[in-house]
Amino acid sequence: MRSRIPELIAVYRDGLLEDTLPFWIQHCVDREHGGFQFCLDRDGTVVDTDKGVWTHGRFIWLLSTLYNTVEPRAEWLELARHGVEFLRRHCFDTDGRMFFTVTREGAPLRKRRYVFTEAFAAIGLAAYARASGEEQAADEARSLFRLMLRYSTTPGLIPPKVDQGTRPSKGIGFPMITLGTARVLRAELQDPLADEWIDKAIDEIRRDFVKPDLEAVMETVGPGGELLDHFDGRTLNPGHALEAAWFILAEAWHRGGDKELTDLGTSMVDWMWRRGWDEQHGGIFYFRDLRDLPVQEYWHDMKFWWVHNEAILATLLAYRATGDVKYSEWHRMVHDWAHQHFADPEHGEWFGYLHRDGRLSVPLKGNLWKGPFHLPRMQLLCWQALEGMRELE
Amino acid sequence: MRSRIPELIAVYRDGLLEDTLPFWIQHCVDREHGGFQFCLDRDGTVVDTDKGVWTHGRFIWLLSTLYNTVEPRAEWLELARHGVEFLRRHCFDTDGRMFFTVTREGAPLRKRRYVFTEAFAAIGLAAYARASGEEQAADEARSLFRLMLRYSTTPGLIPPKVDQGTRPSKGIGFPMITLGTARVLRAELQDPLADEWIDKAIDEIRRDFVKPDLEAVMETVGPGGELLDHFDGRTLNPGHALEAAWFILAEAWHRGGDKELTDLGTSMVDWMWRRGWDEQHGGIFYFRDLRDLPVQEYWHDMKFWWVHNEAILATLLAYRATGDVKYSEWHRMVHDWAHQHFADPEHGEWFGYLHRDGRLSVPLKGNLWKGPFHLPRMQLLCWQALEGMRELE
Repeated sequence: MRSRIPELIAVYRDGLLEDTLPFWIQHCVDREHGGFQFCLDRDGTVVDTDKGVWTHGRFIWLLSTLYNTVEPRAEWLELARHGVEFLRRHCFDTDGRMFFTVTREGAPLRKRRYVFTEAFAAIGLAAYARASGEEQAADEARSLFRLMLRYSTTPGLIPPKVDQGTRPSKGIGFPMITLGTARVLRAELQDPLADEWIDKAIDEIRRDFVKPDLEAVMETVGPGGELLDHFDGRTLNPGHALEAAWFILAEAWHRGGDKELTDLGTSMVDWMWRRGWDEQHGGIFYFRDLRDLPVQEYWHDMKFWWVHNEAILATLLAYRATGDVKYSEWHRMVHDWAHQHFADPEHGEWFGYLHRDGRLSVPLKGNLWKGPFHLPRMQLLCWQALEGMRELE
Repeated sequence: MRSRIPELIAVYRDGLLEDTLPFWIQHCVDREHGGFQFCLDRDGTVVDTDKGVWTHGRFIWLLSTLYNTVEPRAEWLELARHGVEFLRRHCFDTDGRMFFTVTREGAPLRKRRYVFTEAFAAIGLAAYARASGEEQAADEARSLFRLMLRYSTTPGLIPPKVDQGTRPSKGIGFPMITLGTARVLRAELQDPLADEWIDKAIDEIRRDFVKPDLEAVMETVGPGGELLDHFDGRTLNPGHALEAAWFILAEAWHRGGDKELTDLGTSMVDWMWRRGWDEQHGGIFYFRDLRDLPVQEYWHDMKFWWVHNEAILATLLAYRATGDVKYSEWHRMVHDWAHQHFADPEHGEWFGYLHRDGRLSVPLKGNLWKGPFHLPRMQLLCWQALEGMRELE
């Protein structure tokens, strides 16, 4: 990889600053009603005026983080503020919880059980607090982080999907979102609660979701990490697992190269790359089954953009930590396949959803789930990691 | 079509009695814990022991209806009773509502907002009441029908998905399930409530979901039939629409060839065939957009078994009602494509989920959504319709 570093830096940096960011800034800013419209057709046309609140928090985080770590461009700060204003005016319910979607004008549409909206708003406001110097934003970020923790850890506050109590279970999503949110709260605000929860989240992932004897990272287990031999319990999500792996590898790097965390993260990459990479068509499957039985979800063999973003990051950080050429090779494979199949040179940014063989399934550039987050986060963090690796030479 | 009638009868009848039914009877009957296990791999192996309650109601209906209208085979009645016993013992909550899934042993797993479980139990118990002569089953069927009506029509009893009240909407599923359930309650029990609700359901479909100016049958509209120009409101479900169409055509035939209902049903077939048939690969898309914008759901261009079952029925009943060769041709197209792509001659029954081009996506023969219902219902009703058409010659 070393010889490719300058070229890769250019791909990520220019992809971020010349393609991804301009696409969203050109098409999604709502100057009339505030906030952003993320439901965009291939060419950036707005196809649904509804506003997803997850993506508002995420875009605020991205813009503020660019301002904080790339360059203090006034445009980025202004857009972040534009998002924060809409968030504050329209996206909070009277109980302090947040809505999941609102109309263009900001009227509430849907509110959901999980606290993911609050987590993304927390990271957005934390990064924005540093960028703007606003103490209110810092307070809001800390409050939302605490709300998220309280809801995640108080039994009964979030009714489970399988709700009759017979087979309690938990998903890796919760420790992952805790880990990701806490890392941002620590980086932006030095929140004293962050370190404790980073450790707790990693402990939970390691103890309950990581199964060395099965060489698998589970998506859903019993409350004590039990394997649930049913569709839900056997279904693995390589994208999620690779994302958790790079969170852990990033934390390992932050701690100066913590060996145990590095081994944990690279093991997760090893197992889930092998389970997820499609030998026949390339790319990474959306779901796999622990025992290679059929998966119930229809889109199990589709190729989603965010899964590939996480895989690119995970293989790069695994290479950075170990120098093992296996990760360099895997990174090249997924980087090349993803850019060849997802990128849209004609209209910009990436498609989100491909069939197994790489053909386009859905031409949307944005919807409730795809917005300016996974792709630019990958581009930014890969760029920065590679710059650091270049310096090490 | 007339020259093909004997051949088609054989395909449907033998498919039902020599393939579909034996597949399920051989693999899904749980003699140890009662009821049925419908989560089957391609070859019939049980891959998840959890029990879906929708499918219990549906299978009880199928077995009882075969007993009532094909032949009074003791095996069918015994299996229906086997299902009814499990349903009664394990599938009702203390409030009279039913669970959505239970464990193998019958412990409750999940209960949902909608009253579809109750509707399928109602039709199962109604048909079983006639087959067995059991008055208790008839009472239960009538009670569940009334429970379903009460929940569907009392505001607030079923919290909507888009739950903040800003954009109320309704789905065609409710009048459809009412229509389908009422027709069975009338046929099996001569329930005096049935005729009134058959009319109301058809009125609601005609008034609020059928849009002649757009040549579309809507899946989701506002409470007064308003078009909602968002992803959810624009997304059309050809399979659902074709199913609603044949319900209406069957009702038209029941009324001695009601012209207005026939025209309504055939219009629905015309529009939704045109929107749904895949000119390039054959088969019927799962979702389309009213304005041909991108659909948000990932599986929009996949080919599902049940959609094709409903299309086969709809085109056949449209041909029966009109003699129009267009429907004969469409029926041939979808009948041939579906049998070529979904049928599994090696292990029996049909696959459920194909990619757009007809290649297999999921090898499961059964899961929470696919069981002994859509395919055998199609086979049975097509067989019976064609027998009737043969007599008319």
